[in-house]
Amino acid sequence: MEPFSVHILGCGSARPTYKHKPACQVVSLRGKLFMIDCGEGAQMAFNRQGLNLSRLGCIFISHNHGDHVFGLPGLISTMALLGRTAELHIYGPKEVKAFIDMVEQLYCEGIDYKITFHAVDTKSHQIVFEDRSIKVWSIPLEHRIPACGYMFCEKAGLPHIKREMIDAYNIPVCQINNIKAGAGWTAEDGQVLTHEMLTVPAAPTRSFAYCSDTIYKPGLSSLIKGADLLFHEATYPEKLLYRAKQTYHSTARQAAEAAKNAQVKKLCIGHFSARIYDEVSLLKEAQDVFANTILANEGLIIEL
Amino acid sequence: MEPFSVHILGCGSARPTYKHKPACQVVSLRGKLFMIDCGEGAQMAFNRQGLNLSRLGCIFISHNHGDHVFGLPGLISTMALLGRTAELHIYGPKEVKAFIDMVEQLYCEGIDYKITFHAVDTKSHQIVFEDRSIKVWSIPLEHRIPACGYMFCEKAGLPHIKREMIDAYNIPVCQINNIKAGAGWTAEDGQVLTHEMLTVPAAPTRSFAYCSDTIYKPGLSSLIKGADLLFHEATYPEKLLYRAKQTYHSTARQAAEAAKNAQVKKLCIGHFSARIYDEVSLLKEAQDVFANTILANEGLIIEL
Repeated sequence: MEPFSVHILGCGSARPTYKHKPACQVVSLRGKLFMIDCGEGAQMAFNRQGLNLSRLGCIFISHNHGDHVFGLPGLISTMALLGRTAELHIYGPKEVKAFIDMVEQLYCEGIDYKITFHAVDTKSHQIVFEDRSIKVWSIPLEHRIPACGYMFCEKAGLPHIKREMIDAYNIPVCQINNIKAGAGWTAEDGQVLTHEMLTVPAAPTRSFAYCSDTIYKPGLSSLIKGADLLFHEATYPEKLLYRAKQTYHSTARQAAEAAKNAQVKKLCIGHFSARIYDEVSLLKEAQDVFANTILANEGLIIEL
Repeated sequence: MEPFSVHILGCGSARPTYKHKPACQVVSLRGKLFMIDCGEGAQMAFNRQGLNLSRLGCIFISHNHGDHVFGLPGLISTMALLGRTAELHIYGPKEVKAFIDMVEQLYCEGIDYKITFHAVDTKSHQIVFEDRSIKVWSIPLEHRIPACGYMFCEKAGLPHIKREMIDAYNIPVCQINNIKAGAGWTAEDGQVLTHEMLTVPAAPTRSFAYCSDTIYKPGLSSLIKGADLLFHEATYPEKLLYRAKQTYHSTARQAAEAAKNAQVKKLCIGHFSARIYDEVSLLKEAQDVFANTILANEGLIIEL
């Protein structure tokens, strides 16, 4: 099974602290990297994890608050300094465009690559990116400004050929791609070998849902059903529920409710308020509702 | 003597590395903090050194390259989140203004403090800031875009009163401020006590010159003569002199020449190229010309 991993580069909230950096994560699948949010210092954190900038082609921004975008100018500049020529695609609510345009205008004279911004409709649940390996869906969220999450859904790979069957029935090598694509084979003696007899099914597909920043949305569960991993913001403990509501954030308990309702396999909570020092109590609060919960932390790599 | 210290928060160049962060320094004098340049991550580095944002009133920017300004959006936002009301003054070449204006417009709705930008003429050597304790001079530099350094000159304090003379001659307490300000005193028996007899001179004043980014400028020495500390960029070793000239940077040897010509007391070199791994050889190269040289490093605090 190809590695599908999520790297936590920053899991703090608006104000960075000694412990936590502003929001940034990287999804790694089949050699490609996808960044989600790009808080200040993202390029340094990226570097520190030994990730390769040339493998990063797409950045998905959840919303246009500084702690989710202030790493873009530095990242864009460093890519230029490293001689990037490949197009960079940035996805996000339309409000993000003005910032990118300004950075390009003021600091990107003569850079050798193109930056293409794709406005994401934060009200709709739709595919915003697709390639051979992955589909990325937008997830409508509710925050003080337009915001959306993203669901990364691995596409099914081709089934694996049973080598011993190919050998036993003298099936020509030129047929292998057809068989992988779904065909069967009729042997010289007329025996019909079905596709299923010749192949082992591909590994089951995996998915990762990123939901930050948002007030608790019960309707979310249907959109992220059964995800292997859910990252859900948990800015506050339940005792500060009033504050979470005021600021359109969620509590740890609410993040766990979302995980439970959506029947995800694992929950990672983060986007911790700078005022919260006791994250273990956030973890306990979430685990009371959804046992398979972990705390995000800078440098954490979660394998799906 | 009041502490006068320089904190190195970042001393890398355009591309941050595992070792070095983008340019940022903080001058601390008599309870006030002055920032010089504000590369990405400046607010986090500031925080990590235990410095107090409410003491920071002025930021001096050398030039409008990303590695010297990309920390401004995050710093400005965090000040707002912390409830700042005091005006923030930013000094720098006029080109910096567009970036600050954009950050204010896009991300500072409803912030409770005023940001005032002061355009510095990078061609002239003049006082750009002055208060009771300090004068800050601009230093014309030569880089690919308009750039200037800054010289922080402590103002002389008042002389100290000789307590035993006050007691011996029964000088009224109400005269102390006059004497500190330069007056003498005539005793009851007619004896004239000069100002010098009644006081001990204030500690000698100190100065710090920051010169980055710049090609080597022999003319610099007259402007920074006798500084207690000179920070001079040393992006390259002497063997890459051609590259330094091409990019309007200096070599370690040239930084040391500047220190020697200006007869400064101490030299600190930094703004190291991301391609330079052997900083000790940069140090040796500089020390061959100017012995009292040290290497900048993140977290270094230099007491003047």
